[in-house]
Amino acid sequence: MWKMTSLTKIVGIQLPIIQAPMAGGATTPELVAAVSNAGGLGSLGAGYMAPAEIKQAIRKIRELTDKPFAVNLFIPETGQATANQMQHACDDIKQSCIELNIEIAPISEPYAQSFAEQINIIIEEKVPVFSYTFGMLDSAWISQLQTNHTILIGTATTLAEARMLEENGSHFIVAQSSEAGGHRGTFLGKAEDALIGLINLIPQLVTQIKIPIIASGGIMNGRGIAASLDLGAAGVQMGTAFLTCSEAGIPDIYKKTLLAQREDNTVLTRAFSGKLARGIRNKFIDRMGKKTTILDYPIQNALTIAMRKKAKEQNNIDFMSIWAGQSAQLCRNTTASELINALVIETQALYK
Amino acid sequence: MWKMTSLTKIVGIQLPIIQAPMAGGATTPELVAAVSNAGGLGSLGAGYMAPAEIKQAIRKIRELTDKPFAVNLFIPETGQATANQMQHACDDIKQSCIELNIEIAPISEPYAQSFAEQINIIIEEKVPVFSYTFGMLDSAWISQLQTNHTILIGTATTLAEARMLEENGSHFIVAQSSEAGGHRGTFLGKAEDALIGLINLIPQLVTQIKIPIIASGGIMNGRGIAASLDLGAAGVQMGTAFLTCSEAGIPDIYKKTLLAQREDNTVLTRAFSGKLARGIRNKFIDRMGKKTTILDYPIQNALTIAMRKKAKEQNNIDFMSIWAGQSAQLCRNTTASELINALVIETQALYK
Repeated sequence: MWKMTSLTKIVGIQLPIIQAPMAGGATTPELVAAVSNAGGLGSLGAGYMAPAEIKQAIRKIRELTDKPFAVNLFIPETGQATANQMQHACDDIKQSCIELNIEIAPISEPYAQSFAEQINIIIEEKVPVFSYTFGMLDSAWISQLQTNHTILIGTATTLAEARMLEENGSHFIVAQSSEAGGHRGTFLGKAEDALIGLINLIPQLVTQIKIPIIASGGIMNGRGIAASLDLGAAGVQMGTAFLTCSEAGIPDIYKKTLLAQREDNTVLTRAFSGKLARGIRNKFIDRMGKKTTILDYPIQNALTIAMRKKAKEQNNIDFMSIWAGQSAQLCRNTTASELINALVIETQALYK
Repeated sequence: MWKMTSLTKIVGIQLPIIQAPMAGGATTPELVAAVSNAGGLGSLGAGYMAPAEIKQAIRKIRELTDKPFAVNLFIPETGQATANQMQHACDDIKQSCIELNIEIAPISEPYAQSFAEQINIIIEEKVPVFSYTFGMLDSAWISQLQTNHTILIGTATTLAEARMLEENGSHFIVAQSSEAGGHRGTFLGKAEDALIGLINLIPQLVTQIKIPIIASGGIMNGRGIAASLDLGAAGVQMGTAFLTCSEAGIPDIYKKTLLAQREDNTVLTRAFSGKLARGIRNKFIDRMGKKTTILDYPIQNALTIAMRKKAKEQNNIDFMSIWAGQSAQLCRNTTASELINALVIETQALYK
């Protein structure tokens, strides 16, 4: 029975399917709750959200569902940028800002939300599942989350990272393969050196890590789910597939772009945030490919916020970050529950 | 019944498993015949072989088996190198040659075997299956192969390449994913832009290409086979898994290196041949990463032949091309028939 795995048993859900915690607005409370109501595990991508916004979103999710759900945060990183580098980085994105009719100027700290304030909300609200990306969780937080019986899900892109997360107290590990859309979760070594395909990463981890592994990267349909379970995963985490659901909070032009894909048009870029991420190639990525000054994450991310916001307002796909995995051409125009029902039928057919 | 697919039916084999045609000596007639005798499809990687050697190997295979087998050739490419570039390339590999105690000097044409002479052997010998890599086959050859009822297998790394091969008359397409070891088969655009994970590439092709797709890249065990078939493939092609079989013609130190892997230590490099290929990182790859002159394929390949030959003689792993896929840590020390029997048991267990 493919529907019962350690993921479904421990988390108390019906299906081994997690909707990925995509930060930046895609994972509305409506999407998260719809996925959980359909038997999967919805996840709020709260990495960029202010603490008050996280609290509000969690309460909204709880109004919409009584099922388990997850919230995800980014383990904090500090970048460095001299005034000179900051000016160069501004110069490099200036032309794009002019085309959007906005000003660009050097920015100062804070470059990201306060992690301590964010995670305090997770603890106060006794969130059922907490997933985290870009690193390890300090043991002080782990103790508090354990007291709440919060289930912990770390993110690894290599065996070495998975080992560290296992020792650190994660209950599950999301194994992010090279096919995945959005930011690479790599926290040991260079992200460019940690681009391992799903068909290798999952067997590599399941044979060497004791806690259950959740497959992520390029999974879009029943074939991908069945393949992941065959590889030994306890479940799947799917991001791009949920972006084109009606509940997802991304601009219509972003959805239309995904639905228009016929083959892989994604590239890996640091242009938007300073951190390597996979998205559909566009004017900004191409333009920044020729520039030399991309600031450290999260500084570059903070610097391009205004540009991306304006691009969204103007429905201008040239300057948005169109994060997507390599299988975006398999996106469907449905609701979240329709998608999940279809995934169940497709997977079931392969397990007959 | 997972063992019966369009691949087994059309080729007349028992199992949908192809042993990949790895050029450079790995695919001895003994390996090819052992795989075919065990119910799979053995393949001779003849890309670098002289026509007379190919003929001899085919005859030897036929002495050892009466089952179908495949021979693979490289579609020819012409590289360019000025005298100045040739000298720079020599300078860049000089230090490595000194350490091996050999001389390095500029080389001249021909840089590769004559394709016309090679394929004439395939035609004369009425080889049952002909697979080809690095491009399309001229229609004149296709007509002659069709007259012989030779089954044709092209190699694609993207949807666009698969479409061209389908229109060109291939009967099957090997879809080479980013995880694969050895040379990238990309022939449209840059190889760096065609690194698509298996979990994406196979569903992408099976939904848009009519002829059957064979999955390749990182498949090492029953989990990988079951996953590939779930993704819609008609079979799998496995290379690295067969390199550590006792019949494989690679140096012992190469086998030992593969068997000692615990995680992915592969990188993509042009250092050995001028064409992007995946192998285990070593001194030569690291050293060449800092050099600027790597000649076009096949010129760089011809230029480094002496160095690689000497490294093999000296059992010196630092200067060999240790081609391997991302899942090399799953290599086993067995015979080819033991490996195939194990693959059958493992796959069967997942289809219960």
